[in-house]
Amino acid sequence: MSTEVATPESIEWVDATRVDATSVGIVSTQFATLFEPPHEMTLVTGAKLGPVRVAYETYGELSRERDNAIFVCHALTGDAHVAGRHAPTSRKPGWWDELVGPGKGLDTNRYFVICANVLGGCQGTTGPNCIDPKTGKPFGSQFPFLTVGDFVQVHSALVRHLGIEKLLAVIGGSLGGMQVLDWAAQFPGQIRAAVCLASAARLTAQGIAFNCVGRRAIRTDPNFHSGDYYDQPVGPDHGLGLARMVAHITYLSEASIEKKFGRRLQHGDHFAYELLHETEFQIESYLHHQGSRFVERFDANSYLYLTRAMDYFDLEKSYGTLERALGRTEARFLITSYTTDWLFPTIQSRELVDALVAARRHVSFVELTSPFGHDSFLLEVEPLQELLQPFLEQTYMEARRHCGEGI
Amino acid sequence: MSTEVATPESIEWVDATRVDATSVGIVSTQFATLFEPPHEMTLVTGAKLGPVRVAYETYGELSRERDNAIFVCHALTGDAHVAGRHAPTSRKPGWWDELVGPGKGLDTNRYFVICANVLGGCQGTTGPNCIDPKTGKPFGSQFPFLTVGDFVQVHSALVRHLGIEKLLAVIGGSLGGMQVLDWAAQFPGQIRAAVCLASAARLTAQGIAFNCVGRRAIRTDPNFHSGDYYDQPVGPDHGLGLARMVAHITYLSEASIEKKFGRRLQHGDHFAYELLHETEFQIESYLHHQGSRFVERFDANSYLYLTRAMDYFDLEKSYGTLERALGRTEARFLITSYTTDWLFPTIQSRELVDALVAARRHVSFVELTSPFGHDSFLLEVEPLQELLQPFLEQTYMEARRHCGEGI
Repeated sequence: MSTEVATPESIEWVDATRVDATSVGIVSTQFATLFEPPHEMTLVTGAKLGPVRVAYETYGELSRERDNAIFVCHALTGDAHVAGRHAPTSRKPGWWDELVGPGKGLDTNRYFVICANVLGGCQGTTGPNCIDPKTGKPFGSQFPFLTVGDFVQVHSALVRHLGIEKLLAVIGGSLGGMQVLDWAAQFPGQIRAAVCLASAARLTAQGIAFNCVGRRAIRTDPNFHSGDYYDQPVGPDHGLGLARMVAHITYLSEASIEKKFGRRLQHGDHFAYELLHETEFQIESYLHHQGSRFVERFDANSYLYLTRAMDYFDLEKSYGTLERALGRTEARFLITSYTTDWLFPTIQSRELVDALVAARRHVSFVELTSPFGHDSFLLEVEPLQELLQPFLEQTYMEARRHCGEGI
Repeated sequence: MSTEVATPESIEWVDATRVDATSVGIVSTQFATLFEPPHEMTLVTGAKLGPVRVAYETYGELSRERDNAIFVCHALTGDAHVAGRHAPTSRKPGWWDELVGPGKGLDTNRYFVICANVLGGCQGTTGPNCIDPKTGKPFGSQFPFLTVGDFVQVHSALVRHLGIEKLLAVIGGSLGGMQVLDWAAQFPGQIRAAVCLASAARLTAQGIAFNCVGRRAIRTDPNFHSGDYYDQPVGPDHGLGLARMVAHITYLSEASIEKKFGRRLQHGDHFAYELLHETEFQIESYLHHQGSRFVERFDANSYLYLTRAMDYFDLEKSYGTLERALGRTEARFLITSYTTDWLFPTIQSRELVDALVAARRHVSFVELTSPFGHDSFLLEVEPLQELLQPFLEQTYMEARRHCGEGI
């Protein structure tokens, strides 16, 4: 496992090297084995899968009443390592270290925070790069088809496995936000609050188009071997790198790329006039770097499975209407979108808000001004913190009041 | 040469199959050989190149005064075949047939319209897929580095070769618009008017980023052979197809993709739950189709050379300021941008207008409302026609008046 270098989306932009008094400190990934035969999970497709190993981390302490747990759903290429460091020498902290810790937005002095790597991922949870116990070989192309509903089924089971009946909140951005929405619809009684950032009830056609290009880059890489490349000396690195490069552009805003890189050259001020000079502009060098780094930490099959789950996610298709899907839960919602996010534009968050209002659910919505495009949900921590703290506080107080009344 | 199926950008959206009374009829591509040794052209890099064969077409008649010629600069993947058909059985007319013909925006009853395939292209003009007379083999990787200035140098020479001292107008969109701007700066006395559509004085960093991904797809295709693949059984088709797919997304608007394809499936209403089903959504099928079609008609090396020329184009870098670059000509300008074009956003056209105003040049600017994104310049012919007709008419009248005064 190499969660140490795990970096969701383009978090490299953040200087996340500092360790301060608000860090959760040194943490380690834990593992749970769920759905052991004959109790395999039934996937949305009807296929059976088990056992399922889940890699997860926790921060803070579970209260005696077991009522302070918050589950973080990671985005496409994230992992369970949200906060702190795996070792004092770790180069980088967890991917949302700015939000999770003592006194932070997800305050580990008050809350018990959980995050798990998704099913089909490649950071410790059962996925295509794991050994299939039936064959003794990596699943590869034989790994079953997955949906966002399946990710959530595993996370929900993990929460019960940890002895927690009801989560105070579930929170996530992008594909993580899709999991939050699915959770509200699939396990409506398991959550008191849902926080959905830079996400939507479905991916746009443009989003599917970019995923489609990325997947084709992987599949047409001659080292892909139809997904069974684990015994080969080289995997489909070029294809996976390309997939990351094109996706990465969609995580940034045009304005932020322009500001950060513009047309500046990597070396000096003069053109090389050399066709084979691939990284002459700084933006090219940056993208190539993103592609190379990604290949070191991510598995091409996981990329195929997870992006396809993202394409498929469609609450309306699954439940008839958004109102019916989201009205199943009594949870309070906090929804944010970001002005420059063109992958999950604000109009999609408004659709969620409209459905929740129609279903007479409690919903707070804020469109945050940010230059960072889709990645804003990872980068604009301070305004998010300001929204989250009172939202969680109120949810917590109400939960405790209700419990008190029950006594 | 297969100009018959040549299709700039996503013009497939247009039903261009009809032949009407306003067609220029059956046309054929002509060829001129310029810059024959020892009179080779000097490229912007300083390298020499010659002879240069130029594929071009003309429509309408050159006036006795030779004052009614309009040069059309094609975009990245276009060619010389703008209007009419090569044979009565041709499946499709030229790529801008709706604009060029008797009574149309570029009225061939009045004007003599010329279009030539760009240097480095693959539709008849000297490019990397042509035989290098020095070696008797295709240029391939030995083709010299090109810039937009070099394209224009060849076009300018072709115009003189045709016995035309001064063009009534030069017109183009996207990379064609860059050629228009370069023409105004490089050969300021050769044009009376410049029409620049959906273009800019430089590509954005985001645009460079998308080009960078496309080029990498070609270069990492194992059939690329460092550009010398012409004697191989297969070229870098996967890479070139991928490059086209990603570029194609940038030619469309999010709203137009959503409207045309949305999340509709290619077959029926039910998900296949099959990871290897690459074209389950209609948008995927469409993009794959675009990639395949493109590979049939375009050369991977040309794609590398022309996209790099597009990245490099930077009037400000070449001339110090935009005002200085564009102020060199007395030509009148017509500039259009399109509301949903995110590859060449309106703000870039406004920069051109500001520079022209500062240089005290005549400029008309319109931001046209269109849902079709960057491709609008090809698809929204009617509003363009309404702008062009009086603009060209006035330019023509003024030219004739000045000539009359000169007599």
